[in-house]
Amino acid sequence: MNDFSHVTTPAFLVDRSIVEQNCARMRNKALASGVAFRPHVKTHKTIEIGRMQHGGATGPITVSTMAEAEFFADAGFRDITYAVPIAPEKLPRAAALAARIERLNILLDSETALRAVEAFHGAHGTVFDVFLKVDCGYHRAGVDPNDPDSARLAIAISRSPAAHFQGLLTHAGHSYNADGVDEVRRIAAEEIESLSRFRAVLGMDELTRSIGSTPTASIADTFADTDEVRPGNYVFFDAFQATLGSCTRDEVAVSVLATVVGSYPDRGQAIIDAGALALSKDISPEHLDPNFGFGLVCDVDLHPLNARLISLSQEHGKIATSMPLPVGTRLRIIPNHSCLTAAMYDRYNVIKNGAIVDEWRPVRGW
Amino acid sequence: MNDFSHVTTPAFLVDRSIVEQNCARMRNKALASGVAFRPHVKTHKTIEIGRMQHGGATGPITVSTMAEAEFFADAGFRDITYAVPIAPEKLPRAAALAARIERLNILLDSETALRAVEAFHGAHGTVFDVFLKVDCGYHRAGVDPNDPDSARLAIAISRSPAAHFQGLLTHAGHSYNADGVDEVRRIAAEEIESLSRFRAVLGMDELTRSIGSTPTASIADTFADTDEVRPGNYVFFDAFQATLGSCTRDEVAVSVLATVVGSYPDRGQAIIDAGALALSKDISPEHLDPNFGFGLVCDVDLHPLNARLISLSQEHGKIATSMPLPVGTRLRIIPNHSCLTAAMYDRYNVIKNGAIVDEWRPVRGW
Repeated sequence: MNDFSHVTTPAFLVDRSIVEQNCARMRNKALASGVAFRPHVKTHKTIEIGRMQHGGATGPITVSTMAEAEFFADAGFRDITYAVPIAPEKLPRAAALAARIERLNILLDSETALRAVEAFHGAHGTVFDVFLKVDCGYHRAGVDPNDPDSARLAIAISRSPAAHFQGLLTHAGHSYNADGVDEVRRIAAEEIESLSRFRAVLGMDELTRSIGSTPTASIADTFADTDEVRPGNYVFFDAFQATLGSCTRDEVAVSVLATVVGSYPDRGQAIIDAGALALSKDISPEHLDPNFGFGLVCDVDLHPLNARLISLSQEHGKIATSMPLPVGTRLRIIPNHSCLTAAMYDRYNVIKNGAIVDEWRPVRGW
Repeated sequence: MNDFSHVTTPAFLVDRSIVEQNCARMRNKALASGVAFRPHVKTHKTIEIGRMQHGGATGPITVSTMAEAEFFADAGFRDITYAVPIAPEKLPRAAALAARIERLNILLDSETALRAVEAFHGAHGTVFDVFLKVDCGYHRAGVDPNDPDSARLAIAISRSPAAHFQGLLTHAGHSYNADGVDEVRRIAAEEIESLSRFRAVLGMDELTRSIGSTPTASIADTFADTDEVRPGNYVFFDAFQATLGSCTRDEVAVSVLATVVGSYPDRGQAIIDAGALALSKDISPEHLDPNFGFGLVCDVDLHPLNARLISLSQEHGKIATSMPLPVGTRLRIIPNHSCLTAAMYDRYNVIKNGAIVDEWRPVRGW
């Protein structure tokens, strides 16, 4: 049973009970493992879920933009890691925020960035809490832990008057490219090992080893040989995570409600009013299932339909289906990548037992 | 010369002079052709550019969401076509808007939608201004002009007490899939011919024939055998339109300003702080150039660099390049699809002669 009939489409639906379950499961795993829990808030960007991630409190969090950092700080979150390598131009803003909360950790992975931090320190006296980003195999950002230059940079941070060297941080983003759970497990082991090995080389046992990606954190039974975990997508999950095996389909908390606005049974197609701006053009499950399309098409009660979302333009989604989908039919699309889909909405329709019970507003922009 | 040093990144830059030129060129072509001009506002979603499209006035426009329709109506635009087939659930909102402006045209392409319009009319008395959507070969929405059922639907609209039948509307979206200007010309001819032929079959010469896509409208020297044109993307253009031949690169009015936050010369890569949320994951130029990537990487003065934007995650963009791109370097990315990129921003930084001169705020959501 559901009561979405009054909701204008497209709309982003968040199942509160599932989010609560997802939040509790990951938090309990971290607590039981005895590691610090610093969940990422970039997937949902809402104060409400930020608190749920900590069982109702304002605990340590990870953010992907300075706008998120400031938004959560305004709501009482006092310990924040900004987990994108800092651009020198953002140091004044980071310093201003650091001055009004307990801790803002910034990230760097280059001598150039360290020099910028030191120049800022020279001019303003700010001492930044710094994590060194380490590349555990994803090859996006981070230093190579096997490169002697990386150790030199770590030592330079540890000796810099501009930095409190807090730890080593890595993100196993390549777990998203895995072909299944076994490969995710192998990547999870690398993620952990890369930091422990590098820290041992440095001989700096006081450094926090911070890891986190939703695939590696979700398949782990427990967190060992690490100090802090930072998953984020797990609050919502999505069609990609369910395809990869990070979650079951029932654990996906979000969907986009859409209405059929065109029906073309002669060519086996229908058009919905959810397009690229309502879903995002992410095709992340494609490497696991080349025919996946732009989201999982379900009926309004979330039973998957024999239908594929084959293309998106700005405000139209095209579905290939042999089923009759008359104009006016309501559908729900489980998004491929909930982080990108959620960010398209100014407000989330929060549902419980099939009815709208609340509205949450995420922070936007940078 | 430019002065963007104080702008925090990522930022969406709109060159006012280029937008003005693009607006004037298309408007003048429509005026010289003697056709009605009803430009689409979905690309920019701002009142400022909506007025520029009409040489400073509030003329007829086309919108892709009811939120756009209401936003522009609030700013004095009185004649609006909502150019997505109407969902029955949106009729109350459409009726409310229609009651407070001169004309709101809605679109339909099915008997089911017409019945919904008639049911609403029966309950509330509203008579809607209606366009029949015609499929000129794109095969997204619209009726097949060669199918006898389509003529029957047109006749039903013309006789319905719930509708003022205003015209036939088509969109040659398949021009985006063309392999170059010659194919775009062929599609443009089809776009025009499909409506004229169908109108002749109906014998309803009073119906407006409304066409419009930026590729077909841009390559046309003049608009003949049609009554109304509705291009939209031409105000900004983008990397895709330049690759297809709708415009030159110098006619692209928008770019995303980004900062290099990671530099990895050993593997020929750099990371910028513009990811999927700053650019969108559109890869539209890919069918014309398989190595195009997620946007055209330029220096801050918009000279293209020997660099490719090979992947995007939420807040990171990965560039493959043999050039040194030290941390802190400012770059500009010409987006692949400006409609989707613009929609990621709450405000546009308006530039003129390389300096920020204004800030415009687009409408969002649905």
